[in-house]
Amino acid sequence: MSEQYKAFSEQLRKIGLIGSIGGLLAWDNEVYKPEKATEIRGEQTAFVSGLAHEYFTAPEFEKIVLALLNDKSLSEEQSINVQKVHEDLVKQKKFSKAFIQKQSLLVSEAFAKWHTAKTENNFLLFENSLEKIVALCKESAEILGYEVHPYDALLDLYEPGMTTQKLKVIFANVKEQLVPYYNSLLAKQQVDDACLHGTFDQQKQWDISIALLRQMGYDMAAGRQDYAPHPFSISMHPTDVRVTTRCDEHNLSELIWSAIHEGGHALYEQGLDAAYFGQPQCSAASLGIHESQSRLWENNVGRSLSYWKANYPLMQKTFPESFANVSLNDFYKAINKVEPGLIRTNADEISYHLHVLIRFEIEVALMEGEISVKELPAYWNSKYKEYLAVDVLSDALGVLQDVHWSHGSLGYFPTYSIGSFYAAQFYSHAEKNMPQLSEKIEKGEMSELLDWLRTNIHRKGRLYNSEEICAQVTGEKLNFDYFMNYVKKKYDGIYG
Amino acid sequence: MSEQYKAFSEQLRKIGLIGSIGGLLAWDNEVYKPEKATEIRGEQTAFVSGLAHEYFTAPEFEKIVLALLNDKSLSEEQSINVQKVHEDLVKQKKFSKAFIQKQSLLVSEAFAKWHTAKTENNFLLFENSLEKIVALCKESAEILGYEVHPYDALLDLYEPGMTTQKLKVIFANVKEQLVPYYNSLLAKQQVDDACLHGTFDQQKQWDISIALLRQMGYDMAAGRQDYAPHPFSISMHPTDVRVTTRCDEHNLSELIWSAIHEGGHALYEQGLDAAYFGQPQCSAASLGIHESQSRLWENNVGRSLSYWKANYPLMQKTFPESFANVSLNDFYKAINKVEPGLIRTNADEISYHLHVLIRFEIEVALMEGEISVKELPAYWNSKYKEYLAVDVLSDALGVLQDVHWSHGSLGYFPTYSIGSFYAAQFYSHAEKNMPQLSEKIEKGEMSELLDWLRTNIHRKGRLYNSEEICAQVTGEKLNFDYFMNYVKKKYDGIYG
Repeated sequence: MSEQYKAFSEQLRKIGLIGSIGGLLAWDNEVYKPEKATEIRGEQTAFVSGLAHEYFTAPEFEKIVLALLNDKSLSEEQSINVQKVHEDLVKQKKFSKAFIQKQSLLVSEAFAKWHTAKTENNFLLFENSLEKIVALCKESAEILGYEVHPYDALLDLYEPGMTTQKLKVIFANVKEQLVPYYNSLLAKQQVDDACLHGTFDQQKQWDISIALLRQMGYDMAAGRQDYAPHPFSISMHPTDVRVTTRCDEHNLSELIWSAIHEGGHALYEQGLDAAYFGQPQCSAASLGIHESQSRLWENNVGRSLSYWKANYPLMQKTFPESFANVSLNDFYKAINKVEPGLIRTNADEISYHLHVLIRFEIEVALMEGEISVKELPAYWNSKYKEYLAVDVLSDALGVLQDVHWSHGSLGYFPTYSIGSFYAAQFYSHAEKNMPQLSEKIEKGEMSELLDWLRTNIHRKGRLYNSEEICAQVTGEKLNFDYFMNYVKKKYDGIYG
Repeated sequence: MSEQYKAFSEQLRKIGLIGSIGGLLAWDNEVYKPEKATEIRGEQTAFVSGLAHEYFTAPEFEKIVLALLNDKSLSEEQSINVQKVHEDLVKQKKFSKAFIQKQSLLVSEAFAKWHTAKTENNFLLFENSLEKIVALCKESAEILGYEVHPYDALLDLYEPGMTTQKLKVIFANVKEQLVPYYNSLLAKQQVDDACLHGTFDQQKQWDISIALLRQMGYDMAAGRQDYAPHPFSISMHPTDVRVTTRCDEHNLSELIWSAIHEGGHALYEQGLDAAYFGQPQCSAASLGIHESQSRLWENNVGRSLSYWKANYPLMQKTFPESFANVSLNDFYKAINKVEPGLIRTNADEISYHLHVLIRFEIEVALMEGEISVKELPAYWNSKYKEYLAVDVLSDALGVLQDVHWSHGSLGYFPTYSIGSFYAAQFYSHAEKNMPQLSEKIEKGEMSELLDWLRTNIHRKGRLYNSEEICAQVTGEKLNFDYFMNYVKKKYDGIYG
C-alpha cells in the first residue's frame, strides 16, 4: 500500500472512530441517559459532529484525496474508496460552518418542539420550527445543487442516485397496482388475529426475541439488545452493533417483529468488513439497501410460513394460553392480517407503502411550495382519507406521528419503500440461487441465507451504490414487479 | 468577564466535554460493551485521551493561561482557577507524547496480563508487566520532580500536597493506636452476623439500594445505577453522574453498602457547580476528599444506629425470613462486625486501613528499590501475617487482588485511608454544627447533612486542596484523633 493511501485510510479510521464515539452518545441518549443530561448531551454530540467535520475537511486530508484521485497504482477497490470519499468531501465542503451550526441548533430546538407538540397533541407548537426546517431543506438543496428537482438533492443524501422522477414512477406502480390489490383484500373476509392480542409476559417476549436474533446469526458478542422508546439499530463498528426494541404486553407484534427488523439492520453492519473501518468499503451502501436487509428479515423471512414452521413451537410452548389451540396456519394468517390504520410503524406490509407514498407526496409539495406548513395537518388528513380511507382523529396520530421532520430529514421516508422493494427483488434471487432455502429456514437454519447476503450485499459496503448492487445481484435495476409478485403470491394464499 | 477569561473558560469547557465523552466510553466499557468491541473501545479511548491532551496543551491556550496568570482584574475564584490550570499544564507538558504513548500501551498490556494472572492465580504472568510499571512510575517521578522522596511525585497526582513523610506519620498512628485497639476487639466475644448471610433476592436488594440512594439525595434524574463487575461511580457532568453496583444473593453487604459508598461519591459530583464545568471549580478537590464523601456515607452514616433506625423497618419488611426475629441492635452489631480477612474491599472499617498500610509500605519499598517485583508475593504474604495475622492462601487472593497497579497507579491506595480519616473529622464537625443531625437521620431526613456537605465541601470544587478544605471546615489539619475517637466510641459500644 502506498504511503499516501495509508495516510488516507488512517485519517478515515480516525474519522470512523469519531463517528463511532458519536454513535455511543446517540445510543446512550435513547437508552440510558439520565433526563437532566439532555443539555450536556447536546453539547457533546455537537462537539463530536464538529470534530468529524473538521477532520474530514482538513486541508491536508483534501490534498491526499486529490492526489490519490489521479494515482494509477491503486487497486480498483482503493480507487472506488477514494472516489466516494472525494464525492463526500465535495458535498461537505459546500456547507459553511455557520450553516452547519444553524442546522444543528434548529434541529435540537425542532426536536424538543415536536416532542411537546406530539405529547400535547398541538401542531401549532411545532409549526414554526417545521417552517424553519422546510426553509433549511430548501436552502440545503440549493447549496448541494440538483439537475431537475430540489427534492433530488435531499434524496441523494440518503439514497445516492435516487430522484424525484424515479420515485414518481415507482409510486405510480404503488397507486396503480398495489392500491387496487390491497382494496381487493380488504373486501374479502378478514383473518382473525385475536391470538396476537392476549397477554404476553415481557420477559418471555424478550427471551424469544433473543432466541430469534441468535438464530438469524446476530452475534451477541458483537452487539446487544436493550429497550428504547423507539426501536433502532446502531453501529459503532462491526464488533459493536446494537439493537433496541420495545414491548407491549398486549400486542405481540411490537417486540417480536421489531426485533427481527432491527436484527436485519444489525446483520448488515456486523457483516461489513472491519479491516476497512472508516472507509466506504466498511459503510452501508444507502438507507434503501439498509432497509432492504431489515425488511427482508422482518417480512420476507419473518412473516413467512417456513420461518414459523421453525419457530412456532417455541411460541406455543412459551405462550400456551394464547397459542395452544391455534394452528400454525392460523398464526401465519394472523401475523399477516391487512388492516388500514393511522400509524406507519404499525402498518401491515402492504399498506405500509401508502403511508410512505403520502409522506413522499407531502415532501415534494412542501419543497415545491405547493402547500405551506400551516396547511399540512388538513392536507395530511385528506391524503389519509384518500389512500387509506381512514379518519385522522388527532394530529398526534397524524402529522405529528413521525420524528423524521424534526430531525430535518426530508427525503428519508422513501427509502423505507425502496428498501422493501429491493428486499423482494433480492429475496426472489436468493430463492432462485438456493433452491433449498425455504427447507433450511423451516429447520431454523439461517446461515445459508446470511452467507448469501454477506457475499452479495454486506461485504460490498459502499463500493457500489444501490442501483449497482441491485444490478450485480439480480441482473436488472429496481423492478417493482418483484414486490407485487411477492405480495400477490403470499396474500392470495392467505386470503384465498 | 474579560474576553480572555471567557476564551479560557470556553476552552476548558471543551476539554471538559472531551473528558465527559471519555467518561461515557469508560462507563459503557464496564457496564454494557459487547465482548468483541474491546479492541475498538481501546482505540476510541486512546483517541479521546489524546484529544484532551492536544486541547489542553495547545499553544494558544497556554498563551491565554500565561496572560491570565498576571491579570490583576480577575476575581479571587477566577485567579485560583487560572493558577490550578497552570499547575496542571506545567505537569502535563513535562510528559512527552512518546512517554504518554508508551504509558498507554504498557497499561493496556499490563491490565490484560494482570487479569489473566489473577484468573489463573499465577503471579509470574504479571511479573514482567509489573516490573515495567514500577520502572515507568520511577521514570514518571523523575519527570515530575519531587523534593524529598520519588513517591511524593506520585502521591501528588492523586492527593495534591500529600507526601511520603506525612503518610508515615499518619500510618504510625494506625500502627500505634488502631492496631492494638483492633486486636483488643478481636479478643472479645465476637458479634453474630449470620443474619447477613441468608438468601436475599437480587431484585429486592436492588430496590432497597435505589430507595437508600434516593433518601441520601442522589438525584436519579441526573444519574442512574447499573450492575458492573467492580462497583464504581463516574461523572460525565453534574447532570450525569452514574453509579454501579454488584449483587451477591448470599451476602447482603455486597450490594447495600457498596451502593451507599458509590452514592456518596456521586453526591459529591452532583454537588459540583455546573456553571463552571471544565474548570477546577467544577472538579473534585482530590481523591482523598472524594473518598471522604463515599466513606462518610457508607460508614459514619450508613453503618450508624441512627441510619438503621430509619431504614431497618424496610429491611425487615423486605426480608422477613432473615430479619423478622433480629433486633435493630443485633442488626447494627452484625453490620459492624470486625474480622480480619484477605480482601481489602471486604474488610471491616477498621482493618481496612491495615490493608492500605500494607500497600503503602510496599509501594514505598518498590519505589526505593528496597524490594524487587520478584520478591513481592512473599513480601505481601509476610505483611498480611504481620498486620492481620492471616495466611494468604493464593496470589489471586493476595498480591493480585487489586487492579490498581495494572493501571499504573502507584500512590493511589493511601487516598482510601486519608478519605476515611477526613470523613471522621468532617462528620465530627457536622455533628457539632447540627446538634439535631442524628435525630434527623433517624427519621430518614438526610437533606440537612447533604446541604452541609454541599456548602462546606462540594461547592468548593478544586478551588482549594484537601488540606485547605479540611482547615476551612474543621479549623485544623488532618488529625487522626477524630478517626480514632469515632472508632473507639462506636466499637466500645458494640463490643462492650
